[in-house]
Amino acid sequence: MHRYKVTVEYIGEGFCGWQRQDDALSIQQVIEEAILAFTKETVTIFAAGRTDAGVNAYGQVVHFDLQTHYKPYRLTGALNHFIKAQGQAGKIGIISTEEVDHDFHARFSAKQRHYVYKILNRRGIAVIDVKHKTWIREPLDCEKMQIAANYLIGQHDFSSFRASICQSKSPVKTMDDIKIIRNGEDIEIYFSALSFLHHMVRNIVGSLIYVGSGKWQPEKILEILKAKNRSACGPTASATGLYFLKVNY
Amino acid sequence: MHRYKVTVEYIGEGFCGWQRQDDALSIQQVIEEAILAFTKETVTIFAAGRTDAGVNAYGQVVHFDLQTHYKPYRLTGALNHFIKAQGQAGKIGIISTEEVDHDFHARFSAKQRHYVYKILNRRGIAVIDVKHKTWIREPLDCEKMQIAANYLIGQHDFSSFRASICQSKSPVKTMDDIKIIRNGEDIEIYFSALSFLHHMVRNIVGSLIYVGSGKWQPEKILEILKAKNRSACGPTASATGLYFLKVNY
Repeated sequence: MHRYKVTVEYIGEGFCGWQRQDDALSIQQVIEEAILAFTKETVTIFAAGRTDAGVNAYGQVVHFDLQTHYKPYRLTGALNHFIKAQGQAGKIGIISTEEVDHDFHARFSAKQRHYVYKILNRRGIAVIDVKHKTWIREPLDCEKMQIAANYLIGQHDFSSFRASICQSKSPVKTMDDIKIIRNGEDIEIYFSALSFLHHMVRNIVGSLIYVGSGKWQPEKILEILKAKNRSACGPTASATGLYFLKVNY
Repeated sequence: MHRYKVTVEYIGEGFCGWQRQDDALSIQQVIEEAILAFTKETVTIFAAGRTDAGVNAYGQVVHFDLQTHYKPYRLTGALNHFIKAQGQAGKIGIISTEEVDHDFHARFSAKQRHYVYKILNRRGIAVIDVKHKTWIREPLDCEKMQIAANYLIGQHDFSSFRASICQSKSPVKTMDDIKIIRNGEDIEIYFSALSFLHHMVRNIVGSLIYVGSGKWQPEKILEILKAKNRSACGPTASATGLYFLKVNY
């Protein structure tokens, strides 16, 4: 058997998310079908981050095993061909392929995952970026948002930022870093952690937006953390602006 | 009569360009029809830059006159509503509206126009950015491209970078600035001038890409300028990566 690690970029719009579902099209299904079409091998693929419906990825990492040996660049080209054959070119693409050791696991070998949340912050409506960033009309104060975000760095019980359907064993996670960068009308919020709870990034962003618009003071985040109750936090920010950025192994 | 200046953002894909044509849909037509639908006034609108088919804009500036007076923010909202009614929301959008003096002219009052050309420069195929940037697989040397670009700054006869169908009276233009900025896999090339010849930016980009990939030395640009012949320059770069950025008045 040969193990391959592929880096995948995708636009989440129109998919039910990463994971296979019986009644809707997933990113996983498109890639598994491309592998089957090219190799005639039926495989199950494993991803570093099982992104939700509508969530995008620049550097999703996936692994799978094949009986036959292929040169990595050939696999990249062939899988992109069979993704295109499914009408999904420009939505899902294989960026690169490597052959890896059998002890590599896309999900369990990950040491740190990175997300970025993109906001277009201006009075005028979003046009070019309408499908790529979340449009927030009210001016956001990024300094206050960063003060609020800093309260979340470190190990905490993130129950207040956890979706009710979250399957994680524990609500305790360690947030390594949150960095908020403004560039004109664009705001990018970078998150780094070993792992995240379901909807955790989007729930945090929803609360940070409340802080940025002045609805809440930064210290409100401390109260929310202490509440350990989903109803304490802000609204779940739209999936449109969320990107799985990269993984460190 | 009341004169209005509107700032328009659009994705060029699927349109025949800015200017009205009998047999294809233009940005101009969509906006003029939105104005008619809301105000019941038939107007001709004037733009700072008459962009080509497929070329995008962040800050296109347009003016027109109306008999009736409207509050600018109301005009913004109403025009966006009637653009959406034509099925063009997310493709064309009015970002802002101002009432201006009668001597303001979107095209003839312009003092400087700015374009940006966006390149995704990596081995892996473009996915998320496939419709927003031009994908160049070969590594590009931006320092060499900047040296080449510097030869074009100032007043020159740009005949070699001019489309055969160009209607400009003179091929002599003054390039105020060209700045090439790399950020990881992204390259942005900024152009500033009072005005440009038809296809001038895309023809320059095509030649700069040849320099960046090592096919040409930077000094080749001097030869091309001297030739005053379109056949001397590189290929016309794709419209996908080109954005009309803003106008100074």
